[in-house]
Amino acid sequence: MNLLLLEADQLRGSRAVLSPIQARHARDVLRVVPGQELRIGVVDGPRGLGRVAQAGDSIELECTFEPEPPPAPDVDLLMALPRPKVMRRLWAQLAALGVGRIVLTNAARVERNYFDTHVLEPEFYRPLLVEGLQQARDTHLPRVSIHRRFRPLVEDELDALSPDAARVVAHPAADAAPIAGAWPHGARRVLLAVGPEGGWDDFELRLLIARGFRPASLGTRTLRTDTACVALLAALRAGRALPSS
Amino acid sequence: MNLLLLEADQLRGSRAVLSPIQARHARDVLRVVPGQELRIGVVDGPRGLGRVAQAGDSIELECTFEPEPPPAPDVDLLMALPRPKVMRRLWAQLAALGVGRIVLTNAARVERNYFDTHVLEPEFYRPLLVEGLQQARDTHLPRVSIHRRFRPLVEDELDALSPDAARVVAHPAADAAPIAGAWPHGARRVLLAVGPEGGWDDFELRLLIARGFRPASLGTRTLRTDTACVALLAALRAGRALPSS
Repeated sequence: MNLLLLEADQLRGSRAVLSPIQARHARDVLRVVPGQELRIGVVDGPRGLGRVAQAGDSIELECTFEPEPPPAPDVDLLMALPRPKVMRRLWAQLAALGVGRIVLTNAARVERNYFDTHVLEPEFYRPLLVEGLQQARDTHLPRVSIHRRFRPLVEDELDALSPDAARVVAHPAADAAPIAGAWPHGARRVLLAVGPEGGWDDFELRLLIARGFRPASLGTRTLRTDTACVALLAALRAGRALPSS
Repeated sequence: MNLLLLEADQLRGSRAVLSPIQARHARDVLRVVPGQELRIGVVDGPRGLGRVAQAGDSIELECTFEPEPPPAPDVDLLMALPRPKVMRRLWAQLAALGVGRIVLTNAARVERNYFDTHVLEPEFYRPLLVEGLQQARDTHLPRVSIHRRFRPLVEDELDALSPDAARVVAHPAADAAPIAGAWPHGARRVLLAVGPEGGWDDFELRLLIARGFRPASLGTRTLRTDTACVALLAALRAGRALPSS
C-alpha cells in the first residue's frame, strides 16, 4: 500500500479515524507511532499527508490535503465480460492503471453465466478497486456499470456513459493500425473497447465502427483478457506519450 | 487453448500421441472426432496442424508442420524476483507476451525468502509457460534462470545470457525517457530490466547503467510487478511498432 485511501465520511474536519481494517494494517504492517506521517487520499478527492495523532485501539490522523485532486484518468474501458476468474484479477489492475469508467457488456462470445458471479457485486470489487488505487497512489475510483444487452448499450447509452471521448476498438486484424498510434491527435480522452477472447463478432464490430470506434491492433498474439487489457492500455498511452504523436 | 503444444518426444515421424492431460482436454473440452484438425506446435519448433487419426482411450494425431518455427521473441527480461503470489501470476502471461529469457535476480528490496518457493521450481512453472504459449499460439519456451547474487550476475553472466541485445532499465524517474520511445533505433533485441516494487536501489541502478542499460519510464504510477511487466513489455514494443521509431 503506497497510499491510504479514506472514505469522505471518515473525515471530521481535518481529523480521520481509520476503519478497523485500516487500523490493523497501520498497526501490524506499517507499525505506526504517534507523529508519523502517512501518505493519504480521499476517494475521488485530493491526496495529502496524515500525521498519526493517536495510535491506540483507535487510530486517528491529522490530515492536510493538496489543493487539487490528481488528474482524472484519460481512458474509459468498454469490455466484453471475461470469465469470473479473469475479471477478479483485473479489478485492482485496472484501478492501478487508471480507468475512469469500466463498462462491462455482453457479447456473442461471452457465456451468459459469467454474469451470475459475486465477482460483479460492488461488495466484492470495490475493495479490489481501492487496493489498486492505493497501489498506484490515485484517488479516482473507477465507475462500474454492467450491461446484459450489447446493442442498446452501444446505440443508446454509451454516449452518456463516456461523453467527449475518442473511440478505439482493439481488434487483432492484420490491416488494423497499431494500438500505439491509435490515440487520436488532440483527443483528451479515449474510450477503448476490448472484446471477448474469441473476439467481437462481425455484427458487433460493424456496430462499434458505425458508432465511431476505430480499429487498432496490439498484434497477432491471442492474449487472455487480463493480459490484453493491461497491454492495450499501456500501449495506447505509450503512443500518446511520444513526442511525435 | 488456441494451440496444442507437443513435446518433441511425443512425435514418432509425423504421428503424435497425446499425453493423458492433453487427451483429456481433447476429449472433454474440444470433443474431438476422427478427421478433425487441431492447431498444434512443437516446443521450440514449428507450428502445424494435427488431424485426429485415432480418438479412443489414446488420441493420436497425424501432423503436418510449417517449414519454419515462428519468429523468436525479441525481448529478454531481467527481473528482480517478485513475491511468490505475483510470480505465479506472471509465468503464463510472460510466455503469452513472448519473452526469450527470464532472468530472475535478487536485489536489495527483494525479500530473501522469496527464493524459497515452489513457484520457482521447473515442475511448477513449466506447465504455466506452456499454458501461455498455447494461449498465444507460440512455441518458444522462455529460458528461465535464477540468480541469488545481483552483482556477479550483472557483471559476469548477463553478456552470455542475453548477447547482442540493447539494454533498457525501467525506472520511474521524472527525467527518464518514455518507455515507448526506448527501443533503440536498429536494435533487433532488447534486454529489459524491471526492478522490485520499491525500485532498484542507487547501487543497482548505477551498476545497470554502467553496464549499458538506459533508463526509461512508464510514468509515475507505482504498479504491482505483474501489471508493470505486462505494461512495460507492451509499451516498449508498441513504440517499436510505430512507423516513426
